[in-house]
Amino acid sequence: MSFSKESLRKVADEFKRWEETTLAKTLAKAPEIRKEFTTGSGILVKRIYTPLDIRDLGYVRDLGFPGEYPYIRGVYPTMYRGRLWTMRMYAGYGTAEETNARYKYLLKEGQTGLSVAFDLPTQLGYDPDHPLARGEVGKVGVSMPTLKDMEILFEGIPLDKVTTSMTINAPTAMLLAMYIAVAEKQGVSMDKLGGTVQNDILKEYVARGNYIYPPQPSMKLVVDVIEFCTKNMPRWNPISISGYHMREAGATAVQEVAFTLASAIAYVEACLERGLEVDSFARRLSFFFAAHNDFFEEIAKFRAARRLWARIMRERFGAKHPDSLRLRFHAQTAGSTLTAQQPQNNIVRVTIQALAAILGGAQSLHTNSYDEAYCLPTEEAVRIALRTQQIIAYESGVTNVIDPLGGSYYVEWLTNEIESQAEKYIKKIDAMGGMVKAIEQGYIQREIVESAYRYQKEVEEGKRVVVGVNKFVIEEPIQIRLLKVRPEVEKAQIERVREVRSSRDDQRAKRALKSLREAAESGENVMPTVLQAVKAYCTIGEMCDVLREVYGEYQAPTIY
Amino acid sequence: MSFSKESLRKVADEFKRWEETTLAKTLAKAPEIRKEFTTGSGILVKRIYTPLDIRDLGYVRDLGFPGEYPYIRGVYPTMYRGRLWTMRMYAGYGTAEETNARYKYLLKEGQTGLSVAFDLPTQLGYDPDHPLARGEVGKVGVSMPTLKDMEILFEGIPLDKVTTSMTINAPTAMLLAMYIAVAEKQGVSMDKLGGTVQNDILKEYVARGNYIYPPQPSMKLVVDVIEFCTKNMPRWNPISISGYHMREAGATAVQEVAFTLASAIAYVEACLERGLEVDSFARRLSFFFAAHNDFFEEIAKFRAARRLWARIMRERFGAKHPDSLRLRFHAQTAGSTLTAQQPQNNIVRVTIQALAAILGGAQSLHTNSYDEAYCLPTEEAVRIALRTQQIIAYESGVTNVIDPLGGSYYVEWLTNEIESQAEKYIKKIDAMGGMVKAIEQGYIQREIVESAYRYQKEVEEGKRVVVGVNKFVIEEPIQIRLLKVRPEVEKAQIERVREVRSSRDDQRAKRALKSLREAAESGENVMPTVLQAVKAYCTIGEMCDVLREVYGEYQAPTIY
Repeated sequence: MSFSKESLRKVADEFKRWEETTLAKTLAKAPEIRKEFTTGSGILVKRIYTPLDIRDLGYVRDLGFPGEYPYIRGVYPTMYRGRLWTMRMYAGYGTAEETNARYKYLLKEGQTGLSVAFDLPTQLGYDPDHPLARGEVGKVGVSMPTLKDMEILFEGIPLDKVTTSMTINAPTAMLLAMYIAVAEKQGVSMDKLGGTVQNDILKEYVARGNYIYPPQPSMKLVVDVIEFCTKNMPRWNPISISGYHMREAGATAVQEVAFTLASAIAYVEACLERGLEVDSFARRLSFFFAAHNDFFEEIAKFRAARRLWARIMRERFGAKHPDSLRLRFHAQTAGSTLTAQQPQNNIVRVTIQALAAILGGAQSLHTNSYDEAYCLPTEEAVRIALRTQQIIAYESGVTNVIDPLGGSYYVEWLTNEIESQAEKYIKKIDAMGGMVKAIEQGYIQREIVESAYRYQKEVEEGKRVVVGVNKFVIEEPIQIRLLKVRPEVEKAQIERVREVRSSRDDQRAKRALKSLREAAESGENVMPTVLQAVKAYCTIGEMCDVLREVYGEYQAPTIY
Repeated sequence: MSFSKESLRKVADEFKRWEETTLAKTLAKAPEIRKEFTTGSGILVKRIYTPLDIRDLGYVRDLGFPGEYPYIRGVYPTMYRGRLWTMRMYAGYGTAEETNARYKYLLKEGQTGLSVAFDLPTQLGYDPDHPLARGEVGKVGVSMPTLKDMEILFEGIPLDKVTTSMTINAPTAMLLAMYIAVAEKQGVSMDKLGGTVQNDILKEYVARGNYIYPPQPSMKLVVDVIEFCTKNMPRWNPISISGYHMREAGATAVQEVAFTLASAIAYVEACLERGLEVDSFARRLSFFFAAHNDFFEEIAKFRAARRLWARIMRERFGAKHPDSLRLRFHAQTAGSTLTAQQPQNNIVRVTIQALAAILGGAQSLHTNSYDEAYCLPTEEAVRIALRTQQIIAYESGVTNVIDPLGGSYYVEWLTNEIESQAEKYIKKIDAMGGMVKAIEQGYIQREIVESAYRYQKEVEEGKRVVVGVNKFVIEEPIQIRLLKVRPEVEKAQIERVREVRSSRDDQRAKRALKSLREAAESGENVMPTVLQAVKAYCTIGEMCDVLREVYGEYQAPTIY
């Protein structure tokens, strides 16, 4: 242990004396504002932390050095001194043309990575002319039914120079295949491509709701993508295991860590069952967390997640390569904390949250725009959000020193606390038979709903202040400029997908869909046949329908 | 020392191994972005900090507990759990009526303390109808030539319910007297008044330029106010020893601490010479620092200043009462870091700086408005600045735990570093005969100019990025609403001061001015006669002129 026994004894004696004299005298005159103080997630915190709170911490064993096990101080030996995080703004709306223009704007303003938002029809595997797509085409993201759209999306953006993250889950294989096909047309082979597909279907059942197939075939598709990437795309992250959406749905920081890592365990196990070697794929697993309001809790959460994952990979899965033990993550500021009231206040919230993500060692960051509660982010708002990252990177000095909070009695204690509480959750989930089972039984969903309820109740009772919402409220006209998707987008996209269908080599498309069906039925990896279908300009609706017929569709159970 | 020798040996061995293996391998492949990394003030920082960097730190001796010597962990035992800092926005423009309206707006929006900005004629002791006042009346602050204006300024604001800070220096006695007189009219006796007068004349010679008299009589006036308050106003801070303006002029964090504490030493010595007991006045000395860009440097700076001051008071001046050892401070975000370009980016800067002030344990905070580079802050901009404090206070969770960064290897190392560098400066100033001498010789001014030059050069060479200024520049129209002082203000104030002069009991006014002159000539404390003159509606110009005749005016020497 790092602290000497003698020194700890002295601190304990003095602490007791302080409590009984200085502190007691003050409390007798003026009690504290509340009886209990808790983190945003409800962890009870003490007044002050000292070496006594981390008396068992052994520096070498529990903290170590950046780029080495247990990676708590950072996944790379030089961190931001070697390279800044990727400034990656989640963006996409309307048609591929509009989104392409937004990407070029963001790159011009200094963004360093791309992140594609797809519309709901794309995420759910429907073409723009499907009845269920009505009113949703191009709304929360870009409409992307065929390779044609993907070609337009990346026009003038060399895919060997930029990395791209795609928030896509049930139809991951199709969108990844489109990306590969566009890159090929640009003359960039897939082994050169860097980026991420979200491909985390489990959290869709828990929180986000954008699934198509039942859990078992969905897991199979996830592993297909991981397996394909492991063999063909060494620089690609084939999955981004995401706590973000569960957190947004109301999970606590502890639950976010626990449920994300429990999902990760499920994916690793599925890959091992497929016969993959752990050290062949684990290095490309990536993670996605929220950066929420409670500054120190968030920093501690990122650190705890890193140490816990490193231990799980080494001890539970016997991973040996250092790269297999690193938890690399993208962070996004917490959209649910932003308010429609006094929208510029969101710039303040996003700054604090973004700073926590960077002090927590994020590899990549999206900062929300202050106007997101109202509309798609305007250029002005998204620029301020990007500038927030740049000011942190270039003006705040926090990138000069790795893990600058390391050693803080409070942060180390909180890191330990979050880690051990998350570990308990994971043990419980293990006992239920793993994450898939826990989700099927509705356990994870119930835990999150309960946390969300507790939080909401605190806000309603005024125990938790939301500035501008339940305190410091003003009468205000909405003064911000609104960006809405043009109503013509849906019509244009319907026309384009029909034009693609009618101008393609239809025989080739049919053959490709048939191969896809055969691959799905036989249980082999669907990625190669999806890639052929994409290149034949099969639509996302056609491809997903084939799999719907083979796998069936998922109906969510009632939780309560 | 807190760490065991054995554990330090182990850390040192492992550190060496890490440097020679993991780190060396990475650096061989990818060097760091720069050769050297420094704080905003130029302190060279290492890649990572470990227990080795604070091996000599003894917890009980060097950190201790909040509300106890050496006060590094906070000046009060419960800090923000007992009471939040005072949200105190520096404000004032035009006439007393306009500023009164702004104060009521700020109080309605949740501000918890007042801070008065005076215009230049008031600060320099000229009435609005003085030729030197032309064009400046009500411009950078409120015009306040007589008690009449002060009565209007606080109309409807009960002075027993609010604390007020007044940024006034050369004519401190006059403005404090006006405040006392207004309170008396409200039925509040001066012993009930809480607040602060800046009254720090030394930094005016160094950086701010708003002096009237030569250093020696100025120091005498400072001590007059301290002595008067010590005897009559137990809740009042008779001085706010200010590093802010020196920092804004280009001083480094170390210089800010050193020069501020060196000034404080000069004031303490002057008070002791006057015959005051150190424990009678030291408890009411207060401080004012900048919260600048470099996040951790600022936090460390505040902590270092506290520990250093506690030691100076105890060891150098033999102060015995705990209250004499506490360095209580107001912080303001750094106006000089705000940019006219892309003004909303300033919301981000102010958030980071304000967070540093709070993590550094500030007692009171002003957050700059994002439009200050253009104009007087608009209501909208000042509201966002206030909301910034409220979001930190109510949403970020950072107020739950006292000194949350305590123990951080980096922050503790940097705290030690700033403290020891500042101490060296103070020793040097001592050797020159103290702060007054060092200023008279131009030493302090030269040190600051050199720092400012170094900083400016770094910005011009692009070594230091200012987002939106030398990187990430855009073409932009100025889109913000401008608030300017109405041109009629000057005329109105000239009329009002003439009206006051013509309607008052002129014999009483003349007698009061005569008494003031006699007090000044005899060397006795001028406060009682100033108070009588103020109550007789003597103007600030008349009172300051009397002292000009007795003390003379100061002409600044050429520094280079």
